Amino acid sequence: MDKSAIKSILENVKDSKLSVDDALLKLRHLPYEDLGFVKIDHHRNLRRGFAEVIYCAGKTPEQVQEIMGALCNLDNNILGTRAEPEVFKAVQKLIPDAEYHQLARTITVQRYKTEPIGNILVACAGTSDLPVAEEAAITAEVMGAKVDRLYDAGVAGIHRLLMNQEKLDAAKVIVVVAGMEGALASVIGGLVDKPVIAVPTSVGYGASFNGLAALLAMLNSCSAGVTVVNIDNGFGAGYAATIINRLGER
Amino acid sequence: MDKSAIKSILENVKDSKLSVDDALLKLRHLPYEDLGFVKIDHHRNLRRGFAEVIYCAGKTPEQVQEIMGALCNLDNNILGTRAEPEVFKAVQKLIPDAEYHQLARTITVQRYKTEPIGNILVACAGTSDLPVAEEAAITAEVMGAKVDRLYDAGVAGIHRLLMNQEKLDAAKVIVVVAGMEGALASVIGGLVDKPVIAVPTSVGYGASFNGLAALLAMLNSCSAGVTVVNIDNGFGAGYAATIINRLGER
Amino acid sequence: MDKSAIKSILENVKDSKLSVDDALLKLRHLPYEDLGFVKIDHHRNLRRGFAEVIYCAGKTPEQVQEIMGALCNLDNNILGTRAEPEVFKAVQKLIPDAEYHQLARTITVQRYKTEPIGNILVACAGTSDLPVAEEAAITAEVMGAKVDRLYDAGVAGIHRLLMNQEKLDAAKVIVVVAGMEGALASVIGGLVDKPVIAVPTSVGYGASFNGLAALLAMLNSCSAGVTVVNIDNGFGAGYAATIINRLGER
Amino acid sequence: MDKSAIKSILENVKDSKLSVDDALLKLRHLPYEDLGFVKIDHHRNLRRGFAEVIYCAGKTPEQVQEIMGALCNLDNNILGTRAEPEVFKAVQKLIPDAEYHQLARTITVQRYKTEPIGNILVACAGTSDLPVAEEAAITAEVMGAKVDRLYDAGVAGIHRLLMNQEKLDAAKVIVVVAGMEGALASVIGGLVDKPVIAVPTSVGYGASFNGLAALLAMLNSCSAGVTVVNIDNGFGAGYAATIINRLGER
Amino acid sequence: MDKSAIKSILENVKDSKLSVDDALLKLRHLPYEDLGFVKIDHHRNLRRGFAEVIYCAGKTPEQVQEIMGALCNLDNNILGTRAEPEVFKAVQKLIPDAEYHQLARTITVQRYKTEPIGNILVACAGTSDLPVAEEAAITAEVMGAKVDRLYDAGVAGIHRLLMNQEKLDAAKVIVVVAGMEGALASVIGGLVDKPVIAVPTSVGYGASFNGLAALLAMLNSCSAGVTVVNIDNGFGAGYAATIINRLGER
Amino acid sequence: MDKSAIKSILENVKDSKLSVDDALLKLRHLPYEDLGFVKIDHHRNLRRGFAEVIYCAGKTPEQVQEIMGALCNLDNNILGTRAEPEVFKAVQKLIPDAEYHQLARTITVQRYKTEPIGNILVACAGTSDLPVAEEAAITAEVMGAKVDRLYDAGVAGIHRLLMNQEKLDAAKVIVVVAGMEGALASVIGGLVDKPVIAVPTSVGYGASFNGLAALLAMLNSCSAGVTVVNIDNGFGAGYAATIINRLGER
Amino acid sequence: MDKSAIKSILENVKDSKLSVDDALLKLRHLPYEDLGFVKIDHHRNLRRGFAEVIYCAGKTPEQVQEIMGALCNLDNNILGTRAEPEVFKAVQKLIPDAEYHQLARTITVQRYKTEPIGNILVACAGTSDLPVAEEAAITAEVMGAKVDRLYDAGVAGIHRLLMNQEKLDAAKVIVVVAGMEGALASVIGGLVDKPVIAVPTSVGYGASFNGLAALLAMLNSCSAGVTVVNIDNGFGAGYAATIINRLGER
Amino acid sequence: MDKSAIKSILENVKDSKLSVDDALLKLRHLPYEDLGFVKIDHHRNLRRGFAEVIYCAGKTPEQVQEIMGALCNLDNNILGTRAEPEVFKAVQKLIPDAEYHQLARTITVQRYKTEPIGNILVACAGTSDLPVAEEAAITAEVMGAKVDRLYDAGVAGIHRLLMNQEKLDAAKVIVVVAGMEGALASVIGGLVDKPVIAVPTSVGYGASFNGLAALLAMLNSCSAGVTVVNIDNGFGAGYAATIINRLGER
Repeated sequence: MDKSAIKSILENVKDSKLSVDDALLKLRHLPYEDLGFVKIDHHRNLRRGFAEVIYCAGKTPEQVQEIMGALCNLDNNILGTRAEPEVFKAVQKLIPDAEYHQLARTITVQRYKTEPIGNILVACAGTSDLPVAEEAAITAEVMGAKVDRLYDAGVAGIHRLLMNQEKLDAAKVIVVVAGMEGALASVIGGLVDKPVIAVPTSVGYGASFNGLAALLAMLNSCSAGVTVVNIDNGFGAGYAATIINRLGER
Repeated sequence: MDKSAIKSILENVKDSKLSVDDALLKLRHLPYEDLGFVKIDHHRNLRRGFAEVIYCAGKTPEQVQEIMGALCNLDNNILGTRAEPEVFKAVQKLIPDAEYHQLARTITVQRYKTEPIGNILVACAGTSDLPVAEEAAITAEVMGAKVDRLYDAGVAGIHRLLMNQEKLDAAKVIVVVAGMEGALASVIGGLVDKPVIAVPTSVGYGASFNGLAALLAMLNSCSAGVTVVNIDNGFGAGYAATIINRLGER
Repeated sequence: MDKSAIKSILENVKDSKLSVDDALLKLRHLPYEDLGFVKIDHHRNLRRGFAEVIYCAGKTPEQVQEIMGALCNLDNNILGTRAEPEVFKAVQKLIPDAEYHQLARTITVQRYKTEPIGNILVACAGTSDLPVAEEAAITAEVMGAKVDRLYDAGVAGIHRLLMNQEKLDAAKVIVVVAGMEGALASVIGGLVDKPVIAVPTSVGYGASFNGLAALLAMLNSCSAGVTVVNIDNGFGAGYAATIINRLGER
Repeated sequence: MDKSAIKSILENVKDSKLSVDDALLKLRHLPYEDLGFVKIDHHRNLRRGFAEVIYCAGKTPEQVQEIMGALCNLDNNILGTRAEPEVFKAVQKLIPDAEYHQLARTITVQRYKTEPIGNILVACAGTSDLPVAEEAAITAEVMGAKVDRLYDAGVAGIHRLLMNQEKLDAAKVIVVVAGMEGALASVIGGLVDKPVIAVPTSVGYGASFNGLAALLAMLNSCSAGVTVVNIDNGFGAGYAATIINRLGER
Repeated sequence: MDKSAIKSILENVKDSKLSVDDALLKLRHLPYEDLGFVKIDHHRNLRRGFAEVIYCAGKTPEQVQEIMGALCNLDNNILGTRAEPEVFKAVQKLIPDAEYHQLARTITVQRYKTEPIGNILVACAGTSDLPVAEEAAITAEVMGAKVDRLYDAGVAGIHRLLMNQEKLDAAKVIVVVAGMEGALASVIGGLVDKPVIAVPTSVGYGASFNGLAALLAMLNSCSAGVTVVNIDNGFGAGYAATIINRLGER
Repeated sequence: MDKSAIKSILENVKDSKLSVDDALLKLRHLPYEDLGFVKIDHHRNLRRGFAEVIYCAGKTPEQVQEIMGALCNLDNNILGTRAEPEVFKAVQKLIPDAEYHQLARTITVQRYKTEPIGNILVACAGTSDLPVAEEAAITAEVMGAKVDRLYDAGVAGIHRLLMNQEKLDAAKVIVVVAGMEGALASVIGGLVDKPVIAVPTSVGYGASFNGLAALLAMLNSCSAGVTVVNIDNGFGAGYAATIINRLGER
Repeated sequence: MDKSAIKSILENVKDSKLSVDDALLKLRHLPYEDLGFVKIDHHRNLRRGFAEVIYCAGKTPEQVQEIMGALCNLDNNILGTRAEPEVFKAVQKLIPDAEYHQLARTITVQRYKTEPIGNILVACAGTSDLPVAEEAAITAEVMGAKVDRLYDAGVAGIHRLLMNQEKLDAAKVIVVVAGMEGALASVIGGLVDKPVIAVPTSVGYGASFNGLAALLAMLNSCSAGVTVVNIDNGFGAGYAATIINRLGER
Repeated sequence: MDKSAIKSILENVKDSKLSVDDALLKLRHLPYEDLGFVKIDHHRNLRRGFAEVIYCAGKTPEQVQEIMGALCNLDNNILGTRAEPEVFKAVQKLIPDAEYHQLARTITVQRYKTEPIGNILVACAGTSDLPVAEEAAITAEVMGAKVDRLYDAGVAGIHRLLMNQEKLDAAKVIVVVAGMEGALASVIGGLVDKPVIAVPTSVGYGASFNGLAALLAMLNSCSAGVTVVNIDNGFGAGYAATIINRLGER
């Protein structure tokens, strides 16, 4: 229900075609559909520009299934993050065209496809950072962005990174995923003049304190243009990159 | 010295107009000018797209004066952040057209001006957050962006924020500055579908732990599209907003 | 054993109906019944106004069964929190009218019922916060309060909250349950002029640090009238809300 | 401007006495008066039930003077917290009947007085906690509550506390202020069946970590009914106590 | 091998009954017996006054069995702490008179017994603190101290503590075991003029941060005479109490 | 007022020589003298065995002067800790025989002297730890203990410590004061079989985090018999050592 | 591909034997072999002096197998750290001469052997620190160093350490592994004038905070010459010791 | 007094030229000279290989003067760190040939000079890191090492670092000094196969938490061969580099 719909309701009120009370009822009850345990906000698609995203961790397979089912009626794209295989199994029963991306632990339902736009580069430091990097990449792809990948480019072997300067040059936005000391964000940030979204990961041990070391390093980056999201938040980085990338295409 | 200059040197080498050793010398010595205590990177302007920014905290007025003097020869714009009044006094002696922005504690030297482009909204929660918000706004302005301001819009009086929906709608990028519980970033992030750069401030006391509370809150924002910079890092947010904003203008 | 009982003992001493030594014995031995591993304080019911609450985590099913059995002789209401299903099974064998609330992980034994008084609103931000919200709600209900619920009202979709202003208006006390950035407490606190008890939850990941982010945010709330309990402490919030709510009914 | 005023505007629109655009203008511009650096929300008095409170820390004496002056036109009570003596001097020039409470570092302007209602007990552990305790007490008093004080009642001398049981019994709400190990909140919470608002203070050294020890202790209180505010937040506790206390008087 | 033995060796050297090299050999090789993975220090018994204590966590049942076997040849008392049942099973095969204390998770081998001396009171706050309290009590008992217990005496019901003043009065040293807010140490410390050893436990959740809250509270105790050991370190408290208690008996 | 005084009051009540109300009055008002801002507990001397100790930090010179004056009427010993020179000047005016210990920042008033008993060794690691070590030593001395000192015995030069084994042997209790890595407590704890009270100091920089490093090290000491007090808490260690030392003299 | 190879390519370009584009291709594609999920850097062996080390944690047995297989073609030594037994089983199938060191959880493939050089002493405090100590020792051994071991030499029994002075004297570099309070690094550092690499371990409980206590202690060591690696990072210490040890042999 | 001196004393005892008591006296009193507040360990020079280093922070100018005076009699080199200008003034009065290095805040007295050996490279990231870098460099120089400097080589401009590869190649040991995100240590560590000692600095603000961010980043470095010292500990890094550098010269 978009702005024009609301305006139309109000004009009907003005024109006495609709009583104030009925109008109120419409306005109150239309915007979301109550499933009891979660309110699905069909509005959001219009207001935010993307489909509802389901954060599956902490929800039962049945709850995810029910939510995704309700959303599917609307003929839009859906993204489920942090989804274990058994969650996907439950979803697949209801939505056979749902896809599962094992490494990224994400479910996608893609009811319409558009030509990928722009160019988001997702770079990551080590093999263990791949799940977070893939979550970012798939999020951006399902939301319509063209995504390029540059993996295993840690700062301990800086030459590998420098050899890929053209990938850095081609990107509109760069997502940098790194655990341990998280230095990759600063190094890449120093090589480009474009937005860099840094994702610290919980990869590491001991004084990495589950990603705190990388998080602090990225927040203190001496390279301007670097902004940061939560530890392991591949989705958040992919989403932010998408809306920035889209800006460049308008 | 941009890429074409380097290419030209190499072509001269190829054409035997320049010996390899001389070429090496040129390449090595040209890119930065050594002041002894700091290497000024004239390259950066080309590579990063903006003039060198001087972080004045921890430098003596004389050091800042010397660095800014060296940069001024190049006829470009300069930004000095975290500059105390006495630093400005030293700079002004050498560069009479330097300007001081007291609230933001920044010095600007603007040798050329362009038509402001795009639209960056800088929003902040309370009066005490103003210095950080102004640092962000002036950073963006000196780098060529059009900046709009929405101040004193804390979540405790959410109606004041909602009354300014059109400011949110007009922006290409939004910088949200907030201390204490930092909730403003999530609330604004939930109202728009554009990039939001959140700046936690050290405003608060007790369990704010000098901005840690706001920082953590912003990193955990339930609104997608929010990315975060260091506590009190108005410059970093302004810079990142500028390169995103510029993307929308290309 | 209330004050009048103690006074009566002392008067008997004064009247030589009771020797000092016997009186001392009565006073010492009456107030609690020793189960060996825990002293049950029947006094507390009188002094605190509610039955003993059993925190079941870290106790064996048999220990909980024994404690609840001892308390049941007194014909009062009982609340067991953080109770796993196997604990309930043990209790149910002894007390067939015990009830289990799965989502809230609580056991209730309600031997007398009174007309629910006042109006406590329990609001929560997301689906994952429900167990804590339900623990608060059931605590308040078993202690005699009327409870209203407003779930899935996160700040990322502030309109959903604003549409429920009348629920906020009707409440005497509001319990706000939220994880991640915990902003909901500040937003609701800014909309009402009544006591708000904020419960941070451990919902989130990475820099939520098991609820620390939400806890700090709530402690730093810019909305006055907000007080905070421990992370995931739904019981504590429900209990505090109950004694405040009751105050309004006297 | 309360609800009826807004309704009246809308009815005028309906009755064509007011054009939509003019109505919009009124609604937009009425609710707050713009001082440039801060928006004063005259609405808040109606919505929240109390006058605007000025947190003076981080504001210049001139800023506080200007804000208080603007508020004074409205003939209401004003509270300024964290006010240094020089701030008071500036305010006093403009508002001769302003009062300064040195220990509590607060300024009050009391334009109307009502009969104090209810009974709030402010208890504190040691001499060094007095400024925070007094901030709580004066906040409650200026907002119309009857306040009783029980100072220097630390747990190291528990008998002093027990001797004052009647003070505990007489209160409707209790504010407990304590630094160091913060145990007083738990002890008092165990003696009463009424709301206890605990205020940790930064009093202590070493492993008190500026009040963190007391804050954590209070959040982990084994006495139900205890809720907590930020470290040194006497105002917040006094405010919350006032709205709870008022509940008991309705 | 005590001092007199070493002196005797040296005198033999002086008297030429022993070559310097042989003496050196004796001195080097006597003091400990090498098991390969651990050096058993038979000296310690003489130097420290008690048998070697085995911290069993992180050792395999076989390792504990082998160490205890080696120690048993010496006809002394042995204490194994943090021992899981399977560790005890392995030990029992070799040392049939070993005893297991399930709640305290300790193994004791008591080859000689002396009349218990002094009086150590072990007090604890809640049922969940019992394992740590029992570890302290059994440690003290196996090392020859008379131990009294006062369990479930939390500060939320301070009257239960006050009723047991005579237990506090009778003790020479008091070990106080408490989790959550750890206030019991301060309260008991304020009631007596004797050494109090406080043991914070990891009992609690959320902002207890695995015992940090209790630890900080105890370190900040306003009651003088309170010293603190590591979280859950019942053994350390029992040991320290024992050497203090013994001091009173000399 | 000791137990017998209370008993005598009660017997007078029983014998009708005193009305209940008058008795209550006596009991209520006798035990402490109210100075308005602090309650002086003359009881404590009897109950705790030592005079009231004044923690001077955070109190004005006048407040300290007034409190010490009130205590001096009682003809007992007084200890003021954390006292700046100007505090001492104010006290000296009223109490000419007060003494100031500059390094330890303590004031002592010694109205009666007894033969020093027992033997407390105060050991410290470096020159910068001396103020805390002296606070411990003077506390113990004013409370009647014989004190020996072993200063500048850091673990980096372990031979200096081993050369003083006889000092360790002669002590009944040892106070170990150390900053930085705090290893001295473990080393001394491993050399003796007597109580060791460890005092971490805030001496250090960087990752010492104001004494946190030493505090954690001491809490984790692998030498049994070590207990710990708050960072820089020389008084607390001296006091605890005194009551332990006294135990050995009874 | 070393420097001479690159030079040769460039000379071929100069001599027109190779087109610029082909040269670029060679340079880009030669240096590493792409396995898809990880880039193996054959360069590193030349640049860093050792074979690629595989950190096996977080990799599947199949991934480790594939990486080790690719590396084995090169006829060099390989080290796999943090390898669970099932990882070794997978590797062994492909590389029968691979060895597993259970305590150290490392896999080694030693295709060439050289005479061990220098002398690295690995010292550790307790039995539970052995896995980390062994990881350090095996790392150094596989990289060609002579390694001596001094285990179970904790500071609580300092005499055991002093008896092994000759081991300390014989070493060129010392690796000190310790958990709990980590004091061993300071004590050893004070006894020698050679490089000491300290490895904090996560051995301990409660306030050891998973190795934080030992880490902070080691960073604050009062013994100069001590440097520190991450918690439990036996590999890092062994590697650093190796390159220092080798320095002494050149 | 070295080993031979002690042996000689003992032989004299054996030969009855010296009584045991006199020998004991000599042994006890010779090794250090007692200044009352600090024990100067003339032994250390022999045992550790360098002169005593004075950490001047927290000592009065007079104390530093006295200690340096005592050390000067021995005709050796002296290093005073963290020395404010007034400390130097006091020292200079007594020791006219003392030198002050303002940026590094160090005092050196160089009574003998040797040919500088080896090659230590001190690299640092930014201008604000210079004081710590210089402290490291001067420490190494006064102890006889040849020192090369590479300053202002932050990772944001990685090309500046790569242009100086020959400096990296020429060094035996590298000290890397960096604040903020501390990434320089990892980048340099990845370019060389030699020992890298990383010094985190407190340069930065907000989430740098006074150097914690850089410290954690360096401890988590993905480049092997990197070890770490305390925040701002330029001396420690310079000292460790010196003993490693010396190893390469033997």
